[in-house]
Amino acid sequence: MTYCVALKLDHGLIFMSDTRTNAGIDNISVVRKMFTWTEPGERVITLMTAGNLATTQAVVSLLNERSMRPAERDPTIMQVPTLFEAARLIGDTLKEVVATYGGSGPTASSTFDATIIMGGQITGMEPRLFMIYPEGNFVEAGPETPFFQTGETKYGRPILLRALDTAMSVPDAIRLLCVSFDSTLKANLSVGMPLDIHIYKADSLTEGQMFRIESHDPDFTAISDRWGDALKDALAQLPYYPVGS
Amino acid sequence: MTYCVALKLDHGLIFMSDTRTNAGIDNISVVRKMFTWTEPGERVITLMTAGNLATTQAVVSLLNERSMRPAERDPTIMQVPTLFEAARLIGDTLKEVVATYGGSGPTASSTFDATIIMGGQITGMEPRLFMIYPEGNFVEAGPETPFFQTGETKYGRPILLRALDTAMSVPDAIRLLCVSFDSTLKANLSVGMPLDIHIYKADSLTEGQMFRIESHDPDFTAISDRWGDALKDALAQLPYYPVGS
Repeated sequence: MTYCVALKLDHGLIFMSDTRTNAGIDNISVVRKMFTWTEPGERVITLMTAGNLATTQAVVSLLNERSMRPAERDPTIMQVPTLFEAARLIGDTLKEVVATYGGSGPTASSTFDATIIMGGQITGMEPRLFMIYPEGNFVEAGPETPFFQTGETKYGRPILLRALDTAMSVPDAIRLLCVSFDSTLKANLSVGMPLDIHIYKADSLTEGQMFRIESHDPDFTAISDRWGDALKDALAQLPYYPVGS
Repeated sequence: MTYCVALKLDHGLIFMSDTRTNAGIDNISVVRKMFTWTEPGERVITLMTAGNLATTQAVVSLLNERSMRPAERDPTIMQVPTLFEAARLIGDTLKEVVATYGGSGPTASSTFDATIIMGGQITGMEPRLFMIYPEGNFVEAGPETPFFQTGETKYGRPILLRALDTAMSVPDAIRLLCVSFDSTLKANLSVGMPLDIHIYKADSLTEGQMFRIESHDPDFTAISDRWGDALKDALAQLPYYPVGS
């Protein structure tokens, strides 16, 4: 599995993904699930993938036109006029790949499905954030739903529902994401470190801070450790439900 | 779906279940998922069911011997010598019901599977807690895993992993369960109020407090409301992950 979250905040977009991939519980690897295309001053597009790794790698390769010789590559994703068109392009590519391998030949025990979160900005337009399904269709984040998750979404969802605020600062948002990821990492072995982050600042039209949080990162560990204590303190502050002892 | 949790604490066992059942999103009902058999001074057995409602109702009816005339009923679950044997009896009954309806005749789009949490105490022995699978086999809670969940387990799991302590008091445990249920209720419409609770005190060998928390219960609502604020306060206490603003 996977855990990816993207937030659409007033200040811009934040993407965070884990890097664990597994084919069975005894075949675990680290793989990048976050990809960014940039034309400084003109567009920034970031994509996070969840699902079948062969499918998502094929989609990214096709988007990069890696099927062509390097000199002939001219990725369409760098030319579509809007992010809506980018979502359509990615959706079509995804649908095509799923259909190619899922439609004929030997059948596999797992499906070839994948889900993609895509967001970014093109000059003259607002930042936008989309969730793209294996059928090729997609939905967009709005003020009522300012975030998308894929993969193992449930463990880390309650804290996002409770605490996410589109006006929050970048450090506050990163801290919230660290907590959401920490809850997921603690509960599910199919989600694993390191974690990739991209912080895109609205209207910057250039790659923002991109970094990786490795296992045993002392700052992440401090958040994780303190969160356990803070939760217990938070519980202790609550009123009791009236029962005898 | 469903959400059920059972805790095995030093002071005894606590069972909590929701009551929502649905056949499609437009066919929602309230149904009891918690059942208790008691012979005061001799045994108390509580069972919580998750999964196909026809299956779980059939299992409970068979355990109650409702297939026989009232005068002839002599439920075996009241006679098995140990809780291990009770788990075996329930597992066999469950497996038999699943096989009866799942094995032949028209096939349904959903499976007939169900999962059962069972716990209690028989005189002269310790309280025990089991999770019983549709295949009829089962596992027992121990000191490393002092709780079982069934149904929509993921939303409410992180807080249990973080805060559960087998030495905790009943009011502390009920409050923790309220928070775990609240996170699940907020995130998933297939889990719904009211909530049933049974607090079994170790060595009492009689039914403990049994009550139902209805929608808009003011004490539950107070916990839910305060939890949102307490979580935000807890987040605010955490160290930041070092990023620019």
